[in-house]
Amino acid sequence: MNSSSYYPVPGIRLATACAGIKKPDHRDLVIIEIAEGSHTAAVFTQNAFCAAPVIVAREHLTLLTPKYLLVNTGNANAGTGKQGLADARACCEALASAAGCQVEAVLPFSTGVIGEPLPVDKILLAIPEALGKLEAAAWEEASWGILTTDTKPKCFSRKLEIDGQLVTLTGMAKGAGMIRPDMATMLAYLATDAKIDVADLQTCLKNAVEQSFNRITIDGDTSTNDACLLIATGQTGLCLKPGNAEFDLFSQALNDLCVELAKAMVRDGEGATKLINIEVKGGVSNAECLDVAYTIAHSPLVKTAFFASDPNWGRILAAVGRAPVSRLDLDKVRIFLDEVSIVEQGGRSPSYTEEQGQEVMDRDEINVRVELGRGEAQGNVWTCDFSYDYVRINAEYRT
Amino acid sequence: MNSSSYYPVPGIRLATACAGIKKPDHRDLVIIEIAEGSHTAAVFTQNAFCAAPVIVAREHLTLLTPKYLLVNTGNANAGTGKQGLADARACCEALASAAGCQVEAVLPFSTGVIGEPLPVDKILLAIPEALGKLEAAAWEEASWGILTTDTKPKCFSRKLEIDGQLVTLTGMAKGAGMIRPDMATMLAYLATDAKIDVADLQTCLKNAVEQSFNRITIDGDTSTNDACLLIATGQTGLCLKPGNAEFDLFSQALNDLCVELAKAMVRDGEGATKLINIEVKGGVSNAECLDVAYTIAHSPLVKTAFFASDPNWGRILAAVGRAPVSRLDLDKVRIFLDEVSIVEQGGRSPSYTEEQGQEVMDRDEINVRVELGRGEAQGNVWTCDFSYDYVRINAEYRT
Repeated sequence: MNSSSYYPVPGIRLATACAGIKKPDHRDLVIIEIAEGSHTAAVFTQNAFCAAPVIVAREHLTLLTPKYLLVNTGNANAGTGKQGLADARACCEALASAAGCQVEAVLPFSTGVIGEPLPVDKILLAIPEALGKLEAAAWEEASWGILTTDTKPKCFSRKLEIDGQLVTLTGMAKGAGMIRPDMATMLAYLATDAKIDVADLQTCLKNAVEQSFNRITIDGDTSTNDACLLIATGQTGLCLKPGNAEFDLFSQALNDLCVELAKAMVRDGEGATKLINIEVKGGVSNAECLDVAYTIAHSPLVKTAFFASDPNWGRILAAVGRAPVSRLDLDKVRIFLDEVSIVEQGGRSPSYTEEQGQEVMDRDEINVRVELGRGEAQGNVWTCDFSYDYVRINAEYRT
Repeated sequence: MNSSSYYPVPGIRLATACAGIKKPDHRDLVIIEIAEGSHTAAVFTQNAFCAAPVIVAREHLTLLTPKYLLVNTGNANAGTGKQGLADARACCEALASAAGCQVEAVLPFSTGVIGEPLPVDKILLAIPEALGKLEAAAWEEASWGILTTDTKPKCFSRKLEIDGQLVTLTGMAKGAGMIRPDMATMLAYLATDAKIDVADLQTCLKNAVEQSFNRITIDGDTSTNDACLLIATGQTGLCLKPGNAEFDLFSQALNDLCVELAKAMVRDGEGATKLINIEVKGGVSNAECLDVAYTIAHSPLVKTAFFASDPNWGRILAAVGRAPVSRLDLDKVRIFLDEVSIVEQGGRSPSYTEEQGQEVMDRDEINVRVELGRGEAQGNVWTCDFSYDYVRINAEYRT
């Protein structure tokens, strides 16, 4: 699908503005308007130091149904103490007063540098401009407006035919760095025009996030600002309830969309040149499979070998060996790079050749499959390689 | 102490040779001879995929008191399956036969590339040359001989006066990459001429390792080949037993020496430009303090900020927030960079200025102190920054 074909979601309008938060003439403010009668589900970061906007958004969600989402980039409003909370509320108040709604119907979201005061004045000045431009077709523009160090926007769309009715599902996300989402990802906004109860919507979202955003890691650093929202505007009139096939169809489409966004985030990870799927099978529990997968995915040695396209499979083996799994039987462990068997019985596969390994390593999407040979559970994690550019981007981030 | 003043340890002789394992004319083989009547303690990697030499060394240690240590660099003999075990044994046999001892009195150690067959022939050819050159004064030469990507040898020495007698304690280590030791470090060899029972020696070593090599991390990757040995030759005649002040004096000196070696390993970590001590206080348990310290120490974002000398303290705060500690009260957490208070009550310290932060970040040894404010426990970890050179070294490692 090309960028001009993001399907608008009836009941959702979006707009961007240049508030000049970090750089001039840069779209750094996004407003999303949610029509009356919509339901919104949300998951947020599990980082104990969650940012001021996360605290305020959680609070507002318990009080009113959201009507506006206010997103800024260039400043995370995190580690900003009481002033940060006051700043987030001041932005919500300005939008509420300009739009004529209650302050608790506005949810704030911020992403960018941690620990610097939010430039509230700049945001207040830009709000009226954005409010005046709201339109249903602005998903692409908005998907640019939420980016920080990302190099590409991430927006995907689906149309499903359910019960003879067309249902739209569109979502956008940002990622790039400080990405190891835990119950949520950096920032993602998803919307559908189906009608779904708020509790069911929350279940759908949690399930989808668990299999997508919660299965990616760029650098193992969980952000203070992660948030993922799913809005159901109900404007199709089609009502979806758990327990029937239509609901399952929708849930599956949501999962797919989230996986597509999550993989796009990894592919555009800071400095990333490769997308790597770490698939661990044959564990005694799902948790143990994920422990092994994350140990490989976070290994700087594995990640630099992928960057260099070096089939240095010993590093994968060493990572499996240090994963927090007790009584692993080496002789049963098998490791594959795509279709190539690299490790069996505690050593290099007899059939393995360096040429086979090199051929896989030269690809830009690689599957690492680890078979633990001790059970039926499995789990996978998507990650990227570790390049000079990761160091450059993060060494120069505040300059 | 300058490099010419490593104290030889009566009862220990060392030699190096160029076996041409990875590069020609490079000292890549070290033999250490241990006099009759010595005791040897050892700790090894906890990586489930431990290398062939680790398996053989552990086995031999249970059978005989070691007389020779045979160390090669350039090849780790790890992930090499049954052939790797046979190769390690073949090297031990060659040395045993040339030196006239039993094969189980030889312990093998290897470090270098994982997953490639050990070039046994090259090692066998070099053994006689090394055996012919054994001398007590060769610690410096040997400390060069065990290096891989290290840029500097790490060898330190102490003379203690205990009970009117001079006791020598000398040790060397290698580090550089795949360094997050777990019960042992990459390779370290320590020796004293005091007389200590093997069980007491093992306790001394475990305690020292716990506070030194097990408290450092360069990249979070635990090696398959970690090994640390402590030899007591007993040649002074001074007998040390737990429970008396002399033993404590020795233990303290051993701890200090191990910390000195461990810090030297971090300072010479792959691509490292800074030595960072992460000190966590006020936790409810030692384990929780170490969890927080390791989370900070392994954060690529924190490490790249240190590389850039950027006082981006928000990244430290975010790492504390994602550490596996339940019910952390943000308002009680305080963070200091050396003497500068950077975080209190969930945000930037009111007294903090960017200039103060910059001044600390420009130093090449930095202390990060995190006070959790919820108990009396503490723990610390030494680590280094993350630079372009780490990526370069590990991307080019096998070329």
